[in-house]
Amino acid sequence: MHQGIGFIQDLAVVMAIAGIVTVLFHRLKQPVVLGYIAAGVIIGPYTPPFQLIHDEQTIQTMGELGVVFLMFSLGLEFSLRKLFQVGATAIVAALSEIVVMLWIGYEIGRAFGWAVMDSLFLGAILAISSTTIIVKALADLGVKREPFAQLVFGILIVEDILGIAMLVLLGGIAQTGELSPGIAFVTLGKLLLFMTVSLLAGILVVPRVLGYVARVGSDEMLLVSVLGFCFGFCLLVVKLDYSIALGAFLIGAIMAESRHLQRIEHLVAPLRDAFSAIFFVTIGLMLNPLVLVDYAWPIAVISLAVVFGKLVSCGLGTFLAGRDGRTAMRVGMTVSQIGEFSFIIASLGLTLKVTSGFLYPIAVTVSAITTLTTPYLIRFADPLSRRLAHAMPPSVSNVFGMYSQWLRCLMPRSSGTQGPTLFSLTRRIVVQVAVNLALVSAIFIGASYGARYALPLLASWVPDERIQRVVLWSAALLLAIPFLVAVWRKTQSLALLLAEVSVQPEKAGRFTRALRHAIAELVPAVSMIGVFVLVAALSGTILPPTGFLIGVLVCAAVLTMLLWRWCVKIHASMQIALRETFDEGQDS
Amino acid sequence: MHQGIGFIQDLAVVMAIAGIVTVLFHRLKQPVVLGYIAAGVIIGPYTPPFQLIHDEQTIQTMGELGVVFLMFSLGLEFSLRKLFQVGATAIVAALSEIVVMLWIGYEIGRAFGWAVMDSLFLGAILAISSTTIIVKALADLGVKREPFAQLVFGILIVEDILGIAMLVLLGGIAQTGELSPGIAFVTLGKLLLFMTVSLLAGILVVPRVLGYVARVGSDEMLLVSVLGFCFGFCLLVVKLDYSIALGAFLIGAIMAESRHLQRIEHLVAPLRDAFSAIFFVTIGLMLNPLVLVDYAWPIAVISLAVVFGKLVSCGLGTFLAGRDGRTAMRVGMTVSQIGEFSFIIASLGLTLKVTSGFLYPIAVTVSAITTLTTPYLIRFADPLSRRLAHAMPPSVSNVFGMYSQWLRCLMPRSSGTQGPTLFSLTRRIVVQVAVNLALVSAIFIGASYGARYALPLLASWVPDERIQRVVLWSAALLLAIPFLVAVWRKTQSLALLLAEVSVQPEKAGRFTRALRHAIAELVPAVSMIGVFVLVAALSGTILPPTGFLIGVLVCAAVLTMLLWRWCVKIHASMQIALRETFDEGQDS
Repeated sequence: MHQGIGFIQDLAVVMAIAGIVTVLFHRLKQPVVLGYIAAGVIIGPYTPPFQLIHDEQTIQTMGELGVVFLMFSLGLEFSLRKLFQVGATAIVAALSEIVVMLWIGYEIGRAFGWAVMDSLFLGAILAISSTTIIVKALADLGVKREPFAQLVFGILIVEDILGIAMLVLLGGIAQTGELSPGIAFVTLGKLLLFMTVSLLAGILVVPRVLGYVARVGSDEMLLVSVLGFCFGFCLLVVKLDYSIALGAFLIGAIMAESRHLQRIEHLVAPLRDAFSAIFFVTIGLMLNPLVLVDYAWPIAVISLAVVFGKLVSCGLGTFLAGRDGRTAMRVGMTVSQIGEFSFIIASLGLTLKVTSGFLYPIAVTVSAITTLTTPYLIRFADPLSRRLAHAMPPSVSNVFGMYSQWLRCLMPRSSGTQGPTLFSLTRRIVVQVAVNLALVSAIFIGASYGARYALPLLASWVPDERIQRVVLWSAALLLAIPFLVAVWRKTQSLALLLAEVSVQPEKAGRFTRALRHAIAELVPAVSMIGVFVLVAALSGTILPPTGFLIGVLVCAAVLTMLLWRWCVKIHASMQIALRETFDEGQDS
Repeated sequence: MHQGIGFIQDLAVVMAIAGIVTVLFHRLKQPVVLGYIAAGVIIGPYTPPFQLIHDEQTIQTMGELGVVFLMFSLGLEFSLRKLFQVGATAIVAALSEIVVMLWIGYEIGRAFGWAVMDSLFLGAILAISSTTIIVKALADLGVKREPFAQLVFGILIVEDILGIAMLVLLGGIAQTGELSPGIAFVTLGKLLLFMTVSLLAGILVVPRVLGYVARVGSDEMLLVSVLGFCFGFCLLVVKLDYSIALGAFLIGAIMAESRHLQRIEHLVAPLRDAFSAIFFVTIGLMLNPLVLVDYAWPIAVISLAVVFGKLVSCGLGTFLAGRDGRTAMRVGMTVSQIGEFSFIIASLGLTLKVTSGFLYPIAVTVSAITTLTTPYLIRFADPLSRRLAHAMPPSVSNVFGMYSQWLRCLMPRSSGTQGPTLFSLTRRIVVQVAVNLALVSAIFIGASYGARYALPLLASWVPDERIQRVVLWSAALLLAIPFLVAVWRKTQSLALLLAEVSVQPEKAGRFTRALRHAIAELVPAVSMIGVFVLVAALSGTILPPTGFLIGVLVCAAVLTMLLWRWCVKIHASMQIALRETFDEGQDS
């Protein structure tokens, strides 16, 4: 009973001071997050009276749980459907904001004479706005349901995805020390593949299991299952060398497709609140006020850059994507701060030991300053846009007006009850081929990755190393057969379409049938060769020697023919299950 | 980001396996708690494939958080009012159960030739039934709202309090190695004093603060404040050398008087569920299946003893307290298991290193067995009591019938709208004097305890050690003055009452007035001397030398006269505040 006293004491100090400071900050009408950080500074080793925390390591671990729960909650709020609704505008605005802020951050860092890596991380820190702060500020101001707020949430979702991509890229750069376009491409490709596969597989499995558990009606069981999936998936992701943050976000996004989303959010909220409080306190713990005095000048410059940079880049992006000036101004003012994602990026830099110690406190302070200004900026957006509209010379406002009108002409009319066009049909088939190819690739990549563990195990059964590879590769192939069959069938349909379109009877004359037949047969065959080359490249380390390979392929071909109907059936039922999950989510 | 991977991995393993096993146990219609313990055994170091936990220390710490949240939730369900409702029956039944089971456990331990301390802890382990299991079983059977279930909950509340007293006593015995009646009396007296004072002070402060925070409407702020109070209070309790379990239970009981109890319960439930799952898994972690094979025989005997001992002792207690045979049988069958409290007691023994290693696994196994039998026993209670009634010879059932009738005659009729009698008036005043005396005692005990820390601090200001004591003692006296004034005023009223009753005009004749006056003046004066002796005894270590003492007392007397009205007012408003909190709770 008494072994954990030190830890309970730490927790008591953290929670008690967090509680007091939080109430105080609420009275002062300041965001609670700032209260937590202030509590951390008070408790921390750099301020009097003295170091109040005994076991900082354990508190840091609890803070990491806070990151997991924060990202998990972000994932729960993520939704592919919501993303499609705000669509293009959100993507344009978020991309414009991130690219501009990355550049501004990097340039500022270089101008202060900081190292390249510090400057790069500064850019990344400034790029992503804070969902927590924005949701809180909009709710406080009572404008959470207005259209511009919906657009802001869309931008935040896009930012979260791009932020996660950035985390992965930064991790890569930090390890190799450089960013070649090739490596970036491969890294992002692998990330995209991993995200697609885990989203697909997750959405097939997780909501079904949770639905089964939820039907029992016990909150306790549901919570433990949710946490089991959450941490289990995080573990898998960490083993694949991605960050816990990515894992928590992805599994959250998977669970967002569950019917029982609301109950899950309700159950996870107290855990998120408790541990994110600890996370923000740990941020304060690492803050040395003396550093802030030394770096007062950069902090001021960066804070101004965040506010004006985000206002201009995100606002302009919104405007260029076709919204009116008032909306653009409000969106720009709303996203003008940095927050939890910046802390995660800054701590990544510290953990990988590629950034200097001063970057973290600067990020925290800039976040605190811009968090403080956010509510005022949102309130100030409307008067400012009115005043700007008055003050603008007529010629300039004319140009803006013409741009808006031109853009409106460009946009396609919403086409009422038009049937599936050839284009949309083709697009759907291409997407299906891509998804199935992604799954096939994932299986073979997984097999090559798993070979490290599987081969030593196999070694005790089959001593011959070539036979080992045959076994492993055959197993992967067996798993992939349903998806390969699907790829084959979809390319066949695609080839038929292609043959119909490309070979016109008026040109080909009496060869029409023969030509069409040739195309319809050739294209799938060539594609399958391409698929084989891809698979061989991906599974290079476990590819059996040629002789064996041919044997395996022949066996697989025979097996496929025998099991053709079964393969088609299993793939179809998987597809239906996937669609059902999405539709269920949509109903609720 | 990557420093806590080992811990996240442990958590992932614990949560994932707990999730799977829980769903499995639910399908098998067995309690979830058993699933957690089974998950712990699977993960644990004693079973194949291998040790899945890397950082057992941190997981144990998390499990301890589970104990805190479990006891806190128990406290939240505790209620003085509920206790008064089931009143005497619950106390008689719980006392009978605990005393009998303590004795049975001790005797079994001695019969197996175990050490005295092992036997004593075995008795304590068997004494308390499991609230978690019972609530779950009654809910599953759909009989949670029946009168016998209400009685069972009353018994469980009494058991919780007695269990906490037992924890404290066992801790004392384990340290001194013996139990002299004097030490037990002092220990329990201190516990009672501490519980009274902290309940009073807590109920004055905590619900008010939480009410203020709750009005803001942010769940996050409320949760952090609740956790701040919870861990802060636990820390205080631990510093006073009591267990965390006691602290968590007490602060829970204090918060149970808050208006916002439901919201608090809702917020804490996920934390309790998550961490109690970890707690039960850690119990499984410590379970070595081989030990169970070695101790199969004691386990069987103890399991039978738990079922029959609790059935007979608690059932008979219920019957003797005046309930009918059927209710007694159902109550006895319901409480026939051991659970979380037993684990806490067993782990106390391990931590204090006074019990042998085998006691813990035995307790866990007996708990698992009796948990499994509980639902069947509850279901079996009615048929069994019917069959018993049939099979009983008429003479025996006559005796039982006569006992019930006799008891019913003994019970006081509920006396409709009778005014406050002299007796109830006296009782109320005596209670008030006792409560105020308790507060005064607590202040001086607190001051003597705090002297260790305060005197060195004072030393830098006043070098003279006597003056230091004067300062400290005066401060304590100053704090105590409002309560001392209250004691004085209440004893005055008591003396007046006494004078009226004891001096009858027909006997005392013309001395009536004088005699009554003398009594009314003398009794309070003598009482205050008694109070002074008590205070002097309690604060022996910081009592100033006689000369200084007289000076301080004179100053205090003058101050009291000057501040008399203010003292009366402050005490009255505290009393009103306390009553309001209770009434508010009652309304909701």
